[in-house]
Amino acid sequence: MSTWTPPLQRMQFVIEQVLDAPASWRAQPDFADLDADTAREVLEQAGRFAVEVIAPINGTGDTEGCRWDANAVKTPAGYPAAWKAFVDGGWPSLPCAPEDGGQGLPSLLNAALFEMLVSANHAWTMYPGLLHGAYEAIRHNAVPALRARYLPKVVSGEWLSTMNLTEPQAGSDLGLTRTRCEPVDPDAPVVNGAAVTVTGQKIFISGGDQDMTDNIVHLVLARLPGAPAGTKGLTLVLVPKFMPDGRRNGAWCDGIEKKMGIKGSATAQMRFENAEGWILGEPNAGLAAMFLMMNSARLHVGMQGLGHLEAACQIATAYARERLQLRAPNRPADADPAHKGPDPIVWHPAMRRTLLDLHAQCEGARVMAYWTAILLDESEHHPDATVRQERNDLVALLTPILKAFLTHLGHHGANEALGVLGGHGYVHDWGIEQHVRDSRIALIYEGTNEIQAIDLLMRKVLDRPQRLDLLLDVFRVEIDTLLAAQDDAAGTLRTWAATLTDEVETIVAATAELQAGRAAAPDRPFLVADDYLHALGHSLLAWSWARLARAALTDHDTARRDWLLTVTQHGRTWLLPAARWRWQRVADATLALGWIPG
Amino acid sequence: MSTWTPPLQRMQFVIEQVLDAPASWRAQPDFADLDADTAREVLEQAGRFAVEVIAPINGTGDTEGCRWDANAVKTPAGYPAAWKAFVDGGWPSLPCAPEDGGQGLPSLLNAALFEMLVSANHAWTMYPGLLHGAYEAIRHNAVPALRARYLPKVVSGEWLSTMNLTEPQAGSDLGLTRTRCEPVDPDAPVVNGAAVTVTGQKIFISGGDQDMTDNIVHLVLARLPGAPAGTKGLTLVLVPKFMPDGRRNGAWCDGIEKKMGIKGSATAQMRFENAEGWILGEPNAGLAAMFLMMNSARLHVGMQGLGHLEAACQIATAYARERLQLRAPNRPADADPAHKGPDPIVWHPAMRRTLLDLHAQCEGARVMAYWTAILLDESEHHPDATVRQERNDLVALLTPILKAFLTHLGHHGANEALGVLGGHGYVHDWGIEQHVRDSRIALIYEGTNEIQAIDLLMRKVLDRPQRLDLLLDVFRVEIDTLLAAQDDAAGTLRTWAATLTDEVETIVAATAELQAGRAAAPDRPFLVADDYLHALGHSLLAWSWARLARAALTDHDTARRDWLLTVTQHGRTWLLPAARWRWQRVADATLALGWIPG
Repeated sequence: MSTWTPPLQRMQFVIEQVLDAPASWRAQPDFADLDADTAREVLEQAGRFAVEVIAPINGTGDTEGCRWDANAVKTPAGYPAAWKAFVDGGWPSLPCAPEDGGQGLPSLLNAALFEMLVSANHAWTMYPGLLHGAYEAIRHNAVPALRARYLPKVVSGEWLSTMNLTEPQAGSDLGLTRTRCEPVDPDAPVVNGAAVTVTGQKIFISGGDQDMTDNIVHLVLARLPGAPAGTKGLTLVLVPKFMPDGRRNGAWCDGIEKKMGIKGSATAQMRFENAEGWILGEPNAGLAAMFLMMNSARLHVGMQGLGHLEAACQIATAYARERLQLRAPNRPADADPAHKGPDPIVWHPAMRRTLLDLHAQCEGARVMAYWTAILLDESEHHPDATVRQERNDLVALLTPILKAFLTHLGHHGANEALGVLGGHGYVHDWGIEQHVRDSRIALIYEGTNEIQAIDLLMRKVLDRPQRLDLLLDVFRVEIDTLLAAQDDAAGTLRTWAATLTDEVETIVAATAELQAGRAAAPDRPFLVADDYLHALGHSLLAWSWARLARAALTDHDTARRDWLLTVTQHGRTWLLPAARWRWQRVADATLALGWIPG
Repeated sequence: MSTWTPPLQRMQFVIEQVLDAPASWRAQPDFADLDADTAREVLEQAGRFAVEVIAPINGTGDTEGCRWDANAVKTPAGYPAAWKAFVDGGWPSLPCAPEDGGQGLPSLLNAALFEMLVSANHAWTMYPGLLHGAYEAIRHNAVPALRARYLPKVVSGEWLSTMNLTEPQAGSDLGLTRTRCEPVDPDAPVVNGAAVTVTGQKIFISGGDQDMTDNIVHLVLARLPGAPAGTKGLTLVLVPKFMPDGRRNGAWCDGIEKKMGIKGSATAQMRFENAEGWILGEPNAGLAAMFLMMNSARLHVGMQGLGHLEAACQIATAYARERLQLRAPNRPADADPAHKGPDPIVWHPAMRRTLLDLHAQCEGARVMAYWTAILLDESEHHPDATVRQERNDLVALLTPILKAFLTHLGHHGANEALGVLGGHGYVHDWGIEQHVRDSRIALIYEGTNEIQAIDLLMRKVLDRPQRLDLLLDVFRVEIDTLLAAQDDAAGTLRTWAATLTDEVETIVAATAELQAGRAAAPDRPFLVADDYLHALGHSLLAWSWARLARAALTDHDTARRDWLLTVTQHGRTWLLPAARWRWQRVADATLALGWIPG
């Protein structure tokens, strides 16, 4: 009974009117052939795939789950066929380079594709979710023979891929990895592409086994004999489920996890037992090889948050419009005064407020996410190296925020949306409780949100303050643009300029306070890293709302204009003040934190 | 693998040292025989029951769920036997009056019992959860013959009971109830105890059918012919599953819901088809009869929040102590400086902060909840009518806060606790994700938290300001006590006095602002009711922490003293400032709320 439909018009409005992505494409030779119409067509087809192929197996896949099988873990009914349709549609290759058989389309369109896939079916989307990371890892690291053998199958989606990082004792701390790899030929040089055998145990491996593709390309972090301890001694190894000669390799799935959500995604316990493989990239440089794809992987997880938020918004709003309960304390101007029955709960202040919170977050989050995707594209494809470097710095700053903040909004937003449906939200029928369960994992994997906050504050802000300056410059440019706008009779944009000015001053002051106190108390930033990330996330929402309001003011579609002005104003008056205490806490140098005994 | 153990020592500390419940019992003749030792013994036995009987079937019951069966819905393995043990232990009769065959123990001990039952197994605890409400409804409303037939079986627990309120079109809005009841004898007077037949559909009926007792006592809200529209036309009817002569009555379970959690609790779709029953209480006064038991029912749901929070705290803390990942940025003073490996994550600031948040909330919430239970007992059993009335007014004010705020803390706290376990929290093994799922319903049933907020602000505060004055007087008395305390060399209690003084001033100012603006904008309180409830909840936490700190300072158990001083100070410095924006919002008369079109 899920009521999600692809929000194509709102996506296009952000892509074209708010962020003017077509102008960015024109500046990049790799995308020079792409225009807005083509992009629209891609997104329409993507939306159709999501609605017609994977949305129908979202609820059933949750109920059925995966079943362990010694030969190949059984995914829910319809999953393998949906994968075939995805491959036949050419979707895996969308963002891959043309020289690798890809379509060479921007990350932005891939991000929008995955937003919709997750809105429709997060569990199924776990399988292609790791494909692009594997593509990048193989493309950038594999020796030619290995690349020739595996890259085309990964680009086409004929074979799926996995990332084998976590071990029982090594989660956030990959330095504790114990899985070993040993050269097959002890006399051969241990170099990129060398044949090795891998032995060890990995857990939480998404798609570690499945029945959707007839081979699986495992990428495994392991330790060569005599490798340095910690993260500097990790080597990335490519281990196929089936060897090129058809032999079953020693990569075994011993079981799958019973989980809170994404039950259609097989989360495997993997046992590598003298599994044959080849080193991918330089020995002992495995973590660096993984980090190469971290920006796009984290943006990808952020999109999952947006996908859940969008779907949850739609379900809760549809329910609130049709559910009649109690008389509202006041009613919209166009309500029928003669009607005496109960009102739709969408008129009740508590529900309106919840829904407007969610819509404001959703519209703003999409601008943040798509903007970052555009920057990511420019960081790789812009002809000017200075621009690429600058974009790369901005993306590095933004990705931990997107990952943690958007997954937070997605999960907690879905949970708030469940509340709009009351008891009907707690049962399976409307699909909203599944969004709550499925979305929870996104706060954890690909680096927990706590790890993201530390990465943001310590490595991205305090260690290299010029990155934050880049972002502040973006805010300042927007302030100037808002103040220079015509068509602002009501002062909407001047108000936004004042809001953004406040945000910039607060960011600068709180960060300086933190930087100044760091020498005396090096652990203090760790205490407030989470607040810093959420506070900066809200500042970015403010910037996004200002951009939306500015684009809305000149929009010829008056219904859309009014709606966007409503939600952006709601964000400023209801959500920004509620986040201000986080900045205050960041600046509060007196905070101390107790210890838990035992 | 759940690591919950009954927190008997901390419960007893609150009951004896913080709130001095024994002094309250001595002042009430009904409890004059009760002393602290007896109460301890009762709670120890209750804890043993929870650990030994229902905790072991919590995870299995979640996996197995209930199965619909035309004769009697099948509850999970072990549920009926656990019910028999509960009845054999005499637990259902614990808070019932001795003249009804009960043990006549205070609501406080019943609340503590149910805190532990929910920590151990929320789904199973749903079955006895409605028993006490049914007891009260029958006791206060039934004519003697009906009372004699049903009350003893309900007191002993031989028969379980249900509350049939919700219908597909009538959730929060019970005035929309359509279920009909008609006198069996059209010529007899329609009075309390009259025989009627009931026809209609009810949904979300907890325990609507089950295989744990051989009869079920349904209490059904229905409408007599010609009854007034809305809530003033509802009549409460007692409808047994089996009639006194053994005939199967027309109360049918047509199906059970598939839910996010509490899967071992059968949530029934009920069809009453010419079901025979008797009017309970005055005709058309059914809602008033239900409201009689509302305070205890809402306190009961609040205890569910506390039960989940306590269990989640324990699981997350146990995990964080044993899980070793990464080096902490700083380490406790007594850490071994020679140790070079990864540290327990309980030392990492982000985890410490989360856990201290949860523990501060949990210890404070227990004081709030137990205090309210003591007030509830005094409102019914105190010999002085003036005291009873005053306590009743305070309880009326506190119950919506307890229901909404504690269930909010319980669910969101369990969700935060899940995050401490990372990926291990998302899988079933540690039981934490089940707490997240099970706890979600408590924010919805027994009046949604949004309804509680409106009840608190509109009916309990703005309509009768003297109720809030009673609470403020309690705060003021505590401030005087804190300032008069000896043994406060470090100034801990003076700091708490200043904090509570701030809270009182803020409550007074924000409420006055709201009261003053109400005439001009009658809908404004609806916009901020949720903020008001959460803000007042935090003020009550502050009062609870002050009480805990005061009791801790003279505690001879130095480990407990240090721990309580740590968590209460954490609450003051980390949690109270973060809630201050809610008071600001309550006082902000400029807030407006947009409309959602469509």
